[in-house]
Amino acid sequence: MTDEEATVEMRPIGFVRSPHRDKADIPKGPGAEHHAEGTLELRPELEAGLQDIEGFSHLYVLWVFDRSEGYELVSQVPLDLETPHGVFASRSPRRPNAIGLSVVELLGREGRSLRVRGLDMLDGTPILDIKPYLSGVPAEKLRRGWVAEAEERRKQKGQVP
Amino acid sequence: MTDEEATVEMRPIGFVRSPHRDKADIPKGPGAEHHAEGTLELRPELEAGLQDIEGFSHLYVLWVFDRSEGYELVSQVPLDLETPHGVFASRSPRRPNAIGLSVVELLGREGRSLRVRGLDMLDGTPILDIKPYLSGVPAEKLRRGWVAEAEERRKQKGQVP
Repeated sequence: MTDEEATVEMRPIGFVRSPHRDKADIPKGPGAEHHAEGTLELRPELEAGLQDIEGFSHLYVLWVFDRSEGYELVSQVPLDLETPHGVFASRSPRRPNAIGLSVVELLGREGRSLRVRGLDMLDGTPILDIKPYLSGVPAEKLRRGWVAEAEERRKQKGQVP
Repeated sequence: MTDEEATVEMRPIGFVRSPHRDKADIPKGPGAEHHAEGTLELRPELEAGLQDIEGFSHLYVLWVFDRSEGYELVSQVPLDLETPHGVFASRSPRRPNAIGLSVVELLGREGRSLRVRGLDMLDGTPILDIKPYLSGVPAEKLRRGWVAEAEERRKQKGQVP
């Protein structure tokens, strides 16, 4: 149950088709917004797993940072160039398990291909899982720690956003 | 880049300490709410990765359904006993990659241990990643497909909730 050496092996369920060919294409840091459209393409034998997915407006996508190597426990991130932060308190790609998590808007489905908006992944990124987005934490209940502080500091310096 | 046979190996970053000892303890199906408190315990060598996490009110936890075997592409789920749904349109534990995703409220930190509320995992569940929760999709923009329909059907039948 708590075997710290046990590993888990995962096989991609499909791949992202994205207009982002290079890391530099992907908006990062303060005020980054993701509007890129593309598709999530499942392996043919998994198509049945998409049954009834059309009814959801948003999906969670779990994927692999496959062009990132190794990890750093504490590092500088684009949103805050003054102070380094812990990897579990940031979205840095250099994580002990290189899993990315994105929320995308579902635009439509053709067979085993989902058309989506809001991609922040590179073309060819392996997908590990897709889940329906059912509810979120209301904004008034959220505290966003160093991220909110970094945004506030930028605002005071007249940097936008 | 798109090697469909390539696998990814992951090693748990830590384990969940939860009051849920048995699957039957965990609220499931319509109206299920998760208020259980417990801890996320990291491996000692990863503690530095928690730097500055205290400022966030909510966290994403990615974990392994380690007491679930195999997968079903289409299956019956507790929320809707009338119609089966695709695995990627549901939160079924029997997934091609058995990854669970939960949002928990962060209550406090002692060293490498995070006290949290809202656990829906069993005691001893392996954790793959922890990420800060930064924003959600506003409720008015969400469509919740078969989940909303199943809730509506139950309401019309006088079943609560």
